[in-house]
Amino acid sequence: MRQDKILNIPAIRRMPTYLHKLLKMQAEGKVRVSSTELAEYMNIELIVVRKDISLTGISGQRRVGYDVNELIRYIKHYLGWEEPLTAALIGAGSLGTALLGYNDFEHYGFCIQHIFDSSPEKIGREIYGRTVRDIADMESCFAANPPEIAVICVSNHAAQSVADKLVALGVKYIWNFANVSLQVPSGVVVQREVIAGGLAMLAVKRKQDRSVNNQKF
Amino acid sequence: MRQDKILNIPAIRRMPTYLHKLLKMQAEGKVRVSSTELAEYMNIELIVVRKDISLTGISGQRRVGYDVNELIRYIKHYLGWEEPLTAALIGAGSLGTALLGYNDFEHYGFCIQHIFDSSPEKIGREIYGRTVRDIADMESCFAANPPEIAVICVSNHAAQSVADKLVALGVKYIWNFANVSLQVPSGVVVQREVIAGGLAMLAVKRKQDRSVNNQKF
Repeated sequence: MRQDKILNIPAIRRMPTYLHKLLKMQAEGKVRVSSTELAEYMNIELIVVRKDISLTGISGQRRVGYDVNELIRYIKHYLGWEEPLTAALIGAGSLGTALLGYNDFEHYGFCIQHIFDSSPEKIGREIYGRTVRDIADMESCFAANPPEIAVICVSNHAAQSVADKLVALGVKYIWNFANVSLQVPSGVVVQREVIAGGLAMLAVKRKQDRSVNNQKF
Repeated sequence: MRQDKILNIPAIRRMPTYLHKLLKMQAEGKVRVSSTELAEYMNIELIVVRKDISLTGISGQRRVGYDVNELIRYIKHYLGWEEPLTAALIGAGSLGTALLGYNDFEHYGFCIQHIFDSSPEKIGREIYGRTVRDIADMESCFAANPPEIAVICVSNHAAQSVADKLVALGVKYIWNFANVSLQVPSGVVVQREVIAGGLAMLAVKRKQDRSVNNQKF
């Protein structure tokens, strides 16, 4: 199966943002939420919100909105986030550190158990209460406690060899932040994260905006 | 105009990845590229690549492929990246540092000219050759050299007040990495970057994968 056989990419990418909002509402004791409220929060059209939410299989109720707890449950089910997802992070540089500091992961059941680096300056350091280990110890760490997902935050030139090691150790899901197209055997799933994708979105919005303004004057 | 009035979100997000590959081919002296080559690199279907590329307006040539230089020019034009885009980065923490170290930005003409932070420990430090300035000096820096885009990499609770300052100083395009929905006046465009969006994609792929495997056994 090619990796693009997933429909609704923008909807899936929006799910954590809905979840973020809903978890906050839940913490504030709110019981119901309307699609209008969500559309305003997301800054998207109401119809898009309704389509997104219908993907989860929840039945919408006109006028009364959605039950916050129920919608959280449906979104988590849609994403397969009911059970905690364990992860290993490879590369404890600035991006890896930023991911370790991302507060929402724990609410999504995404738990980075291991952090590895090859740099002697980083090995043994603590980041957000977790110790950076030597990448050479990856095999023994995984033997006791294999992660579901590996997050690659190493330099572009090191990424393929790290991926090869991960695959050899049985990792099947890789979240790749290096700007390279990883070669992996079939059956291994790679999600490549391209930070500049968001910049492209902003740039296109800017271009549309400017052409509208140019038409006006 | 609501911000979702942009079609082809996944295609736009893929553009920098095409560009990354094409710029590498250009540096290697390659003159032509086929859609098949690009599909393999992107790990997506050929038809998706053809659709993506047709958005740029370039005319495809069967058998001979695309001229690498021409395709680069068309993609840059599509994104409005022919002219350099100047930016200010607010927040010199780990995520801000990671963005400053992102090599590809310069190839996209994205130039982070200013870096601001409010923390005395960070002000005056050099990151990748650029000095972190006091956020209190933002107004005078912008007066001499206003940026097109501001990149917000501060904590969630500080993000709205930073956005308010930016808007007051005339910034119209904000790339927001804080996990909050910023309130801005109409005419200001915000691109919210949700890192967990990629995790959601990987999670859905994992879920599909597991349900296929469960059907098999």
